[in-house]
Amino acid sequence: MMTEVFVNASVTPIDSLDTLSPYEVARLQDRSNNGLYALFRQCALAVLNTGSEMDSTRKVLDRYRDFDVSISTKFSDVQLDLHNAPASAFVDGEIIQGIREHLFSVLRDLLYVQDELDNCCDGLGESERTTNLVFHILRHAGAMRPHVKPDMVVCWGGHSIDRVEYEYTKKVGYELGLRKLNICTGCGPGAMKGPMKGATIAHSKQRIAKGRYLGITEPGIIAAESPNPIVNELLIMPDIEKRLEAFVRVGHGIIVFPGGAGTAEEILYILGILLREENREVPFPLIFTGPEGSEGYFETVDRFIGQTLGARAQSLYQVIVGDAHQVAAQMRLGLAEVTAHRKAQRESYHFNWQLKIPLALQQPFEPTHELMAGLNLSRHQPDYELSAQLRRALSGIVAGNVKEQGIRAIEEHGPFELRGDASVIAALDELLSAFVEQRRMKINHEDYVPCFRLAAH
Amino acid sequence: MMTEVFVNASVTPIDSLDTLSPYEVARLQDRSNNGLYALFRQCALAVLNTGSEMDSTRKVLDRYRDFDVSISTKFSDVQLDLHNAPASAFVDGEIIQGIREHLFSVLRDLLYVQDELDNCCDGLGESERTTNLVFHILRHAGAMRPHVKPDMVVCWGGHSIDRVEYEYTKKVGYELGLRKLNICTGCGPGAMKGPMKGATIAHSKQRIAKGRYLGITEPGIIAAESPNPIVNELLIMPDIEKRLEAFVRVGHGIIVFPGGAGTAEEILYILGILLREENREVPFPLIFTGPEGSEGYFETVDRFIGQTLGARAQSLYQVIVGDAHQVAAQMRLGLAEVTAHRKAQRESYHFNWQLKIPLALQQPFEPTHELMAGLNLSRHQPDYELSAQLRRALSGIVAGNVKEQGIRAIEEHGPFELRGDASVIAALDELLSAFVEQRRMKINHEDYVPCFRLAAH
Amino acid sequence: MMTEVFVNASVTPIDSLDTLSPYEVARLQDRSNNGLYALFRQCALAVLNTGSEMDSTRKVLDRYRDFDVSISTKFSDVQLDLHNAPASAFVDGEIIQGIREHLFSVLRDLLYVQDELDNCCDGLGESERTTNLVFHILRHAGAMRPHVKPDMVVCWGGHSIDRVEYEYTKKVGYELGLRKLNICTGCGPGAMKGPMKGATIAHSKQRIAKGRYLGITEPGIIAAESPNPIVNELLIMPDIEKRLEAFVRVGHGIIVFPGGAGTAEEILYILGILLREENREVPFPLIFTGPEGSEGYFETVDRFIGQTLGARAQSLYQVIVGDAHQVAAQMRLGLAEVTAHRKAQRESYHFNWQLKIPLALQQPFEPTHELMAGLNLSRHQPDYELSAQLRRALSGIVAGNVKEQGIRAIEEHGPFELRGDASVIAALDELLSAFVEQRRMKINHEDYVPCFRLAAH
Amino acid sequence: MMTEVFVNASVTPIDSLDTLSPYEVARLQDRSNNGLYALFRQCALAVLNTGSEMDSTRKVLDRYRDFDVSISTKFSDVQLDLHNAPASAFVDGEIIQGIREHLFSVLRDLLYVQDELDNCCDGLGESERTTNLVFHILRHAGAMRPHVKPDMVVCWGGHSIDRVEYEYTKKVGYELGLRKLNICTGCGPGAMKGPMKGATIAHSKQRIAKGRYLGITEPGIIAAESPNPIVNELLIMPDIEKRLEAFVRVGHGIIVFPGGAGTAEEILYILGILLREENREVPFPLIFTGPEGSEGYFETVDRFIGQTLGARAQSLYQVIVGDAHQVAAQMRLGLAEVTAHRKAQRESYHFNWQLKIPLALQQPFEPTHELMAGLNLSRHQPDYELSAQLRRALSGIVAGNVKEQGIRAIEEHGPFELRGDASVIAALDELLSAFVEQRRMKINHEDYVPCFRLAAH
Repeated sequence: MMTEVFVNASVTPIDSLDTLSPYEVARLQDRSNNGLYALFRQCALAVLNTGSEMDSTRKVLDRYRDFDVSISTKFSDVQLDLHNAPASAFVDGEIIQGIREHLFSVLRDLLYVQDELDNCCDGLGESERTTNLVFHILRHAGAMRPHVKPDMVVCWGGHSIDRVEYEYTKKVGYELGLRKLNICTGCGPGAMKGPMKGATIAHSKQRIAKGRYLGITEPGIIAAESPNPIVNELLIMPDIEKRLEAFVRVGHGIIVFPGGAGTAEEILYILGILLREENREVPFPLIFTGPEGSEGYFETVDRFIGQTLGARAQSLYQVIVGDAHQVAAQMRLGLAEVTAHRKAQRESYHFNWQLKIPLALQQPFEPTHELMAGLNLSRHQPDYELSAQLRRALSGIVAGNVKEQGIRAIEEHGPFELRGDASVIAALDELLSAFVEQRRMKINHEDYVPCFRLAAH
Repeated sequence: MMTEVFVNASVTPIDSLDTLSPYEVARLQDRSNNGLYALFRQCALAVLNTGSEMDSTRKVLDRYRDFDVSISTKFSDVQLDLHNAPASAFVDGEIIQGIREHLFSVLRDLLYVQDELDNCCDGLGESERTTNLVFHILRHAGAMRPHVKPDMVVCWGGHSIDRVEYEYTKKVGYELGLRKLNICTGCGPGAMKGPMKGATIAHSKQRIAKGRYLGITEPGIIAAESPNPIVNELLIMPDIEKRLEAFVRVGHGIIVFPGGAGTAEEILYILGILLREENREVPFPLIFTGPEGSEGYFETVDRFIGQTLGARAQSLYQVIVGDAHQVAAQMRLGLAEVTAHRKAQRESYHFNWQLKIPLALQQPFEPTHELMAGLNLSRHQPDYELSAQLRRALSGIVAGNVKEQGIRAIEEHGPFELRGDASVIAALDELLSAFVEQRRMKINHEDYVPCFRLAAH
Repeated sequence: MMTEVFVNASVTPIDSLDTLSPYEVARLQDRSNNGLYALFRQCALAVLNTGSEMDSTRKVLDRYRDFDVSISTKFSDVQLDLHNAPASAFVDGEIIQGIREHLFSVLRDLLYVQDELDNCCDGLGESERTTNLVFHILRHAGAMRPHVKPDMVVCWGGHSIDRVEYEYTKKVGYELGLRKLNICTGCGPGAMKGPMKGATIAHSKQRIAKGRYLGITEPGIIAAESPNPIVNELLIMPDIEKRLEAFVRVGHGIIVFPGGAGTAEEILYILGILLREENREVPFPLIFTGPEGSEGYFETVDRFIGQTLGARAQSLYQVIVGDAHQVAAQMRLGLAEVTAHRKAQRESYHFNWQLKIPLALQQPFEPTHELMAGLNLSRHQPDYELSAQLRRALSGIVAGNVKEQGIRAIEEHGPFELRGDASVIAALDELLSAFVEQRRMKINHEDYVPCFRLAAH
Repeated sequence: MMTEVFVNASVTPIDSLDTLSPYEVARLQDRSNNGLYALFRQCALAVLNTGSEMDSTRKVLDRYRDFDVSISTKFSDVQLDLHNAPASAFVDGEIIQGIREHLFSVLRDLLYVQDELDNCCDGLGESERTTNLVFHILRHAGAMRPHVKPDMVVCWGGHSIDRVEYEYTKKVGYELGLRKLNICTGCGPGAMKGPMKGATIAHSKQRIAKGRYLGITEPGIIAAESPNPIVNELLIMPDIEKRLEAFVRVGHGIIVFPGGAGTAEEILYILGILLREENREVPFPLIFTGPEGSEGYFETVDRFIGQTLGARAQSLYQVIVGDAHQVAAQMRLGLAEVTAHRKAQRESYHFNWQLKIPLALQQPFEPTHELMAGLNLSRHQPDYELSAQLRRALSGIVAGNVKEQGIRAIEEHGPFELRGDASVIAALDELLSAFVEQRRMKINHEDYVPCFRLAAH
């Protein structure tokens, strides 16, 4: 093992399209509150810190507090000067190419997204505007591939899964790759990395040189879930809600591996969409799967969904245990249905404009103690609305676990309080207790202290 | 010869990156004053009307008054439906690939440019903002190639030159191409096409599969100077001033062939820049050339420059007659100097940020009778300012000759009146008379009626 | 114009596949009779002498008698050291890429062909063996493109045509290129260059970066007809008969432009094949064409065919005058028929195995006075056999005009004598006299002295 | 898991260069003794049987005795019709692309190699001729990459290693891949697969789309060591000796992982070369490595080398235990030396012409009881000669273990007998006993019955 050191290096883009104006360089250098420097530094650090076992944004930031990145102005061609960067990003002093690309993806998205947030789509309503914005960001990053038949499989699941689960995600990825399918994940370790690794080997055997390993993240989570360098298209969405919307609009089907609160949040998000009347006819393959020995996780989740959202929600997914081959075969069937439907509807293959996403799932939710306490966890509302409320609850818990702001809020004010109907709270309690017990809340599960408190009305 | 007919056809983009949001489709369909439809239709028609001998925008529009283009909304993938389109754009019913690309370049630039004009670069001054905007448009169109050594030769000259001159522009293009140089022109016929044709043959011999044939135009001129399909990068700048700025920032040297008022406008533009004190140290190869028998043109132009701007202006270019090989060899030497200078200054190769362009040359000049009459054509001002004023005078004359709005203004109010110092007016008179006499004002030179009147103070 | 000079230069292959064993280097260096040096030097010189106006092999060899090429043994990577090479192959001291490729094509084919001639296809009969050999040489050179629909148009015609005819060949090439067809010629100047030039421009407009410009030559003719550098696949067949076989097996249709004895030889060759009973069902588009003003040539040729081979032979081709568009449209129709036929017959697209070529047309004919005198020019034989005999007669005349050995034989022994039936000899006399009169025998037609004498039995 | 079934399928080549003449098709179909059918069928089966756990050629052939492959003659384009093929080569009925390529590599090499064996290199001595033949086969397969700096690392080692050793070979491959090095192995499972798998992941992170995974095999061993589909360049050399020569001429350094008799054979081969006086100055990095826990293997081997060949032989390699990072770093240093040496000597990068290989190591050794008994295992000969004799002894043992002919010979005549000096025989006994004890002789080590008997003089 190499001794951990800090590295100083200058990095230029490979792709000659990465060229900046002095105006843009100035914005990235701007350390004022309006400037992009702080955000850029944080994301750049996350990208460089790949392979790390730390999932606390704060710890990462603390360890690399002397890390600095500047854009050289002496050359008109972009050059990033890194100081005290994590050594793991380098091989014999040279940066790993995939990480180099990630650095410039960060830069591309930060500049573009801010512009778009300010200026996109005059005259459209908030929901439509959000969807268009997501589309623009994806397109600007080159993530749209029209005319290609639906083949993008989103894999969700925990970043801190055990060895057996990890090997299983690789096997599923391998079977997907053998079927020439591509992979999209949240781009961190664990279930976000395994499928890509498996698919890489399978793509190699299938001579697919341009397999896509799409990683979609956002500034709040990136430090806790550093992108793995297999990701060959990295997207930094502005917030968790647009990240989730990007998943369901660019992906053609979803596989969910075991995970923790974040994974449950994602499940509630997609159910909140698919439960909507308007989306009934839109085929969307959704498979929950894990290796033998991990049945417990999906039993827990499935029971929770049954207790809170009911049987119709349960009918929207299938659960497959310990059969990677079957998962890939089922996904392929599902994608064939998606293809047939889009063809019949003359819908585009590359972006799922059809799916109606309720505004409640699009609006950014920044969890504060007040907002968390105000969530409506009652059964006296439509299933998709409850799903949206529960999604927020779990989003808050993820923030309290690993995000910088969330951790600070918990330190200052104690755990979040969640209130609701007895039956909902009981179900939630069971779910979260199981996560804690199954050690799915954090990588360092030994010292896990829950960041939430449940209370029935 | 094929009988001329009108063609109906549906066209989809080749490149899978051309994908639009419903919002953008709506903007392109919008036939209201704020919408892009009218502009899009006009540019699309110009692109399809390649090879035409008409240089009057109005005549083109009139002939194809039943032409229509719509964007199909049934498919989410972009599709252009053309009605009554010029048959010359098609071979056996199939659109020529180069023209297909041009259609989508138009679409790309119209959408992007409007956004940028509205939103670009908060906080910058007008001149800087304009330059950044030009940069953004070029970059968005993929016209930036960092790290490539200066090799982009801009060729200016008339669209209605005679056979001997045309063959000579091909020879010069051939010699440039043999030296692995690329070509940038205003993208119409004549001197804008010949060099590209010659370079194509030379690039083929040099096995350069990715030779660049960059055409820069703007909505006001495009109909009168339809892009030729060899152009493999078509840029629609928002106005003539930004088009000119694009030429000098993306080009590394300029060759001027014989032409008319438009060519003279271009010469005055570049002299107005190079005469500035701040630009003295910036090398910029500038060659005037034509075949034997065309010496008259450059004698006229050179004398005019001597009489109005003086000897220093005359020292900024060299004139070479009837020696294509020498032109290419001199340009190569000039580019070597450009390369050395940029390297030494650590300046980028792909965009000439160094050159200071005075605001007077950047601000759009829309010639009205009043503005034309108000031009300051006096010698009692710095040479570069006089150059800018003369540039506007000639720009107005081009508009009066071939642009829709200009022609209408002349019809309504009679010729533009230009006033100035006797010596300047005399020089201008000599220049313009020579253009008329040399039949350089219009393709149909027989019926040419001057759109201007000169008056000394 | 550059002053003509001799250039010394070292040239390495671009394509990394060109690597030689010491054994092969030794063979190329071997100046003994068994060695390849003399042949290699002669072909290399021809390749470098592009653009020359000399069509006498002897004159070329004489002018560049000090030319030398050696393969550097200091480096294991192949390097050609050229001494006193023609300056026209270089631009500012650097060899033109296309010519560089040609040098290594020569090397590739000379080495391979000799091996194949010695070792190919044990157990096959002579005719089949010859066809397999042609196939192997083409395949080794990478000239086979299976699965590509028939699109290779062979253009035959003279190397010394006038300006109007040359411009017409360009127009035809342009129309073929617009239809995305590829060009194959004998790779010299005139009608062998024009179609490629036209197609290059059209391919550029159609964005076809990989247009094929296939040139097929042989050591005996190459010096008189230097390959033009647009040719991007150069093949050196071992003799004229295999060159002709290559044309008809790799081409999908043939266009014949005006030419001289060589062109007539080619016409007789293809007629000698298509007249065979076994080939009746094999579609093979064959078009004779020239600009207005050149009707005379095809009238002469058509009359000759009628007089010697009869009406059925005349039914195998169509003559189109002055209509490039029509030529291309007809060729496209013909190719569609070829495609349909091969599909139905499950025949390969890339090599015409179906066509039976009689051994008489395959066996090398090295014209001596004795063999020429012994040709059977009688009408008392099947049409295809007479065609083969006449083909040899014309082949001998080409040799007497431009090939090294032929010229020497004529100098030593006087003109070849051809004997035959009065009607055949009369027709031949009319044909050849017309060629002389139309100045189609040599580039320097002023001093043309016929190398043949005709005598009726 | 899929139920194992036999599959029928038709397979066409992807790469359009794979086109055959009827003559070649006939040779491949020829089931006579002179024909290629039997060999082709055997190799095709091996290629399709990837992932199998059987390392007995006979068992493989027996299981798939109904397997048949024919080349369709209805289509001129090559098509392989497979009957009763192993199902593992297919995904949902479609052949894995990598395996498809392997089938056509087999076809390419069988046809070419037979021609070359018959016809190559008239006039050269046997040793030189062999080397040229190896060169020609490699070049014909496209395995030469001139101008690329030495980067090809040969990995040797057993096909039946344990999990820990296998994971370690992946780690070493990963570290090599991160350093942008390529991998060449014998192309079977175990230590021949692991490094390629690791390098694939690393190349993906380094964005190397064209990483090379070169597999070199021969008909005698291929069935026992089916190529893994990651191999993207498969070479079928005619015999084990030319396979070994290909390794050392195309590779730039060698890493040896734990293995059995085959691996020891390879070690003795390279030592037999490097011990030669003429090769003293030729740098050749040679590293023996395995994970912690596998030290025993290299201690055994090292002791054996010391006892038989002496200390100088031991100085030619370094042993590294359990440090993949260090192995890659040392190999990189070694390759830098190779590069420097070739540059200084003006030697080619792509083929090691410099290394002198004694004829004794080049001549095919087909082990019979008589030849095995006749080996000279005496210390009274130069070290390199003893090395060559020992190499043969081990080659015979490999044949007796896994090759069709060898197994049959043992069945008929009992174990091979090896005789020699007491000290040599003792060392050999110790070595082979250790292999048996360490279970390195066969995959199914339980039932291993030695195929040899040792006897001291």
